[in-house]
Order: sequence, then structure tokens, then C-alpha cells
Amino acid sequence: MRSEFQFIQHIKDRFSLSRIGDDCAVLPKDTDTDMVMTADMLVEDIDFRLDWTSPESIGHKALAVSLSDIAAMGATPHWAMISLGMPEGLWKSDFADRLYDGWHTLAKQFRVELIGGDISKTPDKLVIDSIAGGDLLKGRAILRSGANIGDAIAVTNYVGGSAGGLTLLKNGRRLDGELESWETDLIRYHLEPLPQAEIGAYLQENQLANAMIDISDGLVSDLNHICVASAIGARLVAEKIPLNLNLVHLTASFDEQLELGLNGGEDFQLLFTIDREKIPQLSAYNIDGYRPVLCHVIGEVTSNVGEIELVRGGKSSKLEPRGYRHF
Amino acid sequence: MRSEFQFIQHIKDRFSLSRIGDDCAVLPKDTDTDMVMTADMLVEDIDFRLDWTSPESIGHKALAVSLSDIAAMGATPHWAMISLGMPEGLWKSDFADRLYDGWHTLAKQFRVELIGGDISKTPDKLVIDSIAGGDLLKGRAILRSGANIGDAIAVTNYVGGSAGGLTLLKNGRRLDGELESWETDLIRYHLEPLPQAEIGAYLQENQLANAMIDISDGLVSDLNHICVASAIGARLVAEKIPLNLNLVHLTASFDEQLELGLNGGEDFQLLFTIDREKIPQLSAYNIDGYRPVLCHVIGEVTSNVGEIELVRGGKSSKLEPRGYRHF
Repeated sequence: MRSEFQFIQHIKDRFSLSRIGDDCAVLPKDTDTDMVMTADMLVEDIDFRLDWTSPESIGHKALAVSLSDIAAMGATPHWAMISLGMPEGLWKSDFADRLYDGWHTLAKQFRVELIGGDISKTPDKLVIDSIAGGDLLKGRAILRSGANIGDAIAVTNYVGGSAGGLTLLKNGRRLDGELESWETDLIRYHLEPLPQAEIGAYLQENQLANAMIDISDGLVSDLNHICVASAIGARLVAEKIPLNLNLVHLTASFDEQLELGLNGGEDFQLLFTIDREKIPQLSAYNIDGYRPVLCHVIGEVTSNVGEIELVRGGKSSKLEPRGYRHF
Repeated sequence: MRSEFQFIQHIKDRFSLSRIGDDCAVLPKDTDTDMVMTADMLVEDIDFRLDWTSPESIGHKALAVSLSDIAAMGATPHWAMISLGMPEGLWKSDFADRLYDGWHTLAKQFRVELIGGDISKTPDKLVIDSIAGGDLLKGRAILRSGANIGDAIAVTNYVGGSAGGLTLLKNGRRLDGELESWETDLIRYHLEPLPQAEIGAYLQENQLANAMIDISDGLVSDLNHICVASAIGARLVAEKIPLNLNLVHLTASFDEQLELGLNGGEDFQLLFTIDREKIPQLSAYNIDGYRPVLCHVIGEVTSNVGEIELVRGGKSSKLEPRGYRHF
């Protein structure tokens, strides 16, 4: 069965579409500005479960995934729309109000304005389509296709935390139960991810990233998208993957932690390639005067087109993109 | 239970949102241009049924409803996105290919470019979110709020045809069965509506429409949206409602025909108000040199805020908006 990625490539080829295939579409706005926009569909029992998340968290996450796509282009988000398909039972409750509350709390933080959307009834499952748009300087969108051989590969903050939270949820742990603080942290990280919008814009404004994507399907899967688009390969160093610090509580096995970090997905961190000489500029970034930004160099771009290697203890092995796929 | 219209007003008030509530959101683009955009969700077994429509028709209609919203602002559509939530069974077939075929056939006709979207799995029902955008001269978007007392009320082409086609489908008639030509016409009109984008742009360019909306929920329901937004009332003349000519085959009863025309919905014709002295300019419009445009004057704007009357045989009665509502 073809994957959704293969299908998108097929549609792209078939109808000669040049603007699809990246985190966002880029359209000219005015003489100085491009605009970017993205749409993300979240479906009950596929992308979230009502019994382990609050309406507020669903609203938060729906917007977060789209703002993360905008961050991955290096753009600043400005507007959003939300289409909501909802079964009648939920409609009769305060679910929609609470979902919009969660949505707006995040929107306010990033100064994003709700400009439209739709409300529809569904037979039984909740469906959300989240649409967001932003701006950046003309010609400066950071595409998946810009990686160069010899670039360093870097990632913001830590990875694996979202998959760790998901593991806890699958094991029956709930935010409203009695939890250790590391459990709360991991679950909250999964349910209410924070888009890396500020650092995305910083990387763009300072022309630090040659190619960029956000980690939604999984680090290796998303790196593979950069490899395909840029016609390059990649070499990662296992010991350099910045694993979420709470994962040690979840499992003592480094193999298991690494698996969550490489293939877990939904971390919504930014994965990018950068000229080696620019690496020192990463640590110069300081969001608000006291928070230094954590960007971790985890590997390098190679000429082995489409191949992703993992070096561990000095030994190299080939990685397959095993992150989340719908089909 | 509150309707979706009441909920949208509630969200609009609660978060002080100025850009929602019309057919499209309007955003500034450059010094001369505004852009408009809209999102419409279509859900299996609510908005369409797989056993009476083809994948191509679903693709066509998904785009058509969004282009119709753009037409209702007087704008010209340029780009679109589509988010597709699909159960695995459909994914394994050629359904998605055929849906995109239907989508693209209409997109080509209106020179609309697919710039993005999403593909997601759903547990069992097909869900589509259709997003489209367009441009128009700055400050010239035709809102629902612009109607003035004394304006004439007009509608493009004919109404009731979509509801007539839906009636036939509910009665078991299918496009692939043996049909009279009028049945084929009505069903096709329901399944593959044509957005009135050219005349929408013409009305805007010539500043003929003071307020405008497309007929999606039903003529009276949609007129009521104009009444509420413009703080006006309306008087319609029953004999002037341009009923789809094929409805006479469906039912000999004028009452039944009128019901389909007033409350049927999904005609995707444009309903607008116009200064009386500009009415002659409507017939001057000629899309391509040989097709005169049919705009029918069906009533007038009154000062009875929120009241819609129907005059029939000289007698007036009050109409309630009974068109389609999700909730």
C-alpha cells in the first residue's frame, strides 16, 4: 500500500504542483514579504483519544501542530482558521467552548488571530482541521531542499518526550490521576506541545538554517524528508541525540530511550542543517534575555543520497524511517 | 440547543474577533490588494453519501463550496488547500486519485492552484476540509453587513435545483441508473454545483452589490444572515423567486417548488442587495460575449430589522429561516 508521502508526490507530479511538499506552502504577499500557510487534520482515535486528553489540550495541540509547521519555514505566525467536525453529543456539552479556550490560550501567546473556519456535524468522531499562516522576508523561507553536503545537522531542545508521554498514556497513566512529576511533564509535553516559533524565526533572520523541518512523524522520518528533498544523506551520532531527560525514569535502557528519540515523533522540535562555521551562532541566541536556546548538533549531511546512518560506539548502521505513517 | 451560528457569534464576542462571521475572512495583502480565505468541512453521511456520488463529484463539490464563498465576497480565487481524512478501505482503492481528479478539473476551470493540505487516516468516515483563497481590490470585499434599506434583493440564476436533485437521490434515483434528462440535470446540479465566481467578481468590480452571500444553507436562511449583519429586514415576492425550471417535473405543486427554492440550500447562487438605480447594469453583464447573466430581482430591503416577509398573491406572511443547520 502506498504511503501518504508517496501519494502526495504522485499528486504533485501528476498535476505539476510546485508549492506542495514542504511544511508550508509559500506564496508571494507584497514586494518585501512572502506568506506561508499550512493545514493539519487531527482525527479522534487516530491522533488523539478523548479519554486521555482534555478539550483544552486538544484545542492547544491543534493550533500547536500548525504553528510548528510555520516555525519550520522560519516564518512568524499571524492568523489561523479552525474547522471543527463534531458529533452531536459533544456539541451539547461545553466541549467546544473548552476546546476554543485551549486554542486561544496558545494563540494569544503567539499573537495569532482566529480569522475563520467552519463547524460541521459528524456521525460519531471529532475531527479538527487546523489552518495557520504567517509571513517572512521574501525568498527567505527555509525549505526541506536546502541542505548541503558537509552541513551539520542540529535539533532544538530535546526529543523523545512526546513518545514517552504517549507510552505513559497507553499504560493507563492520566493527568488527573496521581503522578510523579516526571510523568506529568512527559504527558503534558505530549498533550500540549509548544511550537518552536521564536527560534524558527531566529534561525531564518540570521540565515543559520539551510534546510529545516519540524519533528512530527519522528526524527529519522522527518530527516528522511530533508534527505529526499535535498538529494543528500545523513549521519547521526547516537550519543549526541538530545534525549528528553525524563526518559531515564521511564526506562533504564538506552536502546529504548534512543528508539523514542529517533522514531517517537510529535516532539515538534525543529530539525535543521547548518553551515559548520555558523554553529557558534546557535548558542548566541537568547530568547528573552535569560533563556539560552538549546540547539544540539547531532550529525552531518553526507553524499550518500537517501541513506541515513547511525554511528554508535564508533560503529555505523543504516537507519530506516520508521516514524508515524497514516498509511 | 444552540445552533452553530449562535456558537460562532458567542466565540466572536468572547475573544473579540472581528474577522469571522462572513463568507470569507479578509486580510490586507499589499497596498492595493486584500486577500480573502475560507474553510469548509464536508463529512460523509452528513454532507454527502458515498452510495450516491462519485469520488470525482466529491472532489468537485469540496472545491466548489469554497470557491462559492470567495465569489460571495466579490473576490477572484487563486489558491486552495485540501485536508483529507480517509478510512483505510478507501485509501486502498483509487478513491483518492479520483477525488483529486474531480477537484482538479474544477480548479483548472477557475485557474486555482493546489498549494497544500494534509492527509490523515480516519476510523471509518471520509472527511474533507476545503480551504481556498483569493484577492480583490483593497477595501472592496462585499460583506453581509452592507445592505441598505430600500435596496433591491437579487439572486443569480435559479434556485431550488440542488434540493430537487437531493430529493431525487433520496428517492433512490442515481446518475448511473436510467434517468430522464431533467433528473440527470437536477442530480448533477446537486452533486457538482458551479461556483458563481465570474459574476461575483463582476458585481464587485462594478460596485453593484452592497451586501452579498452565497446560498448554501437556503435562500431564506442566508438572507437572514444578511438581515442580522446589516440590521435590516427583507420582503420577498413569491412569484419572483426564480425556481429551477426542472422542478415542474418533480412536482406540480407551486408550494412544494417554492419550499425547495426558499429553504432547499446548496444552490451556491449569489444572493445580494443592490441600489435600485443600478439594476439595469445587471443585464449589461455578459460573461463571455454570448451568455447574458441572469440576475433576478426578488424583493427589497426593509426597515423591519430581522424580519423576512413573503408576499404572495398580494398577501404578506412572515418567513422563518428553516434552511440547513448542523446543530
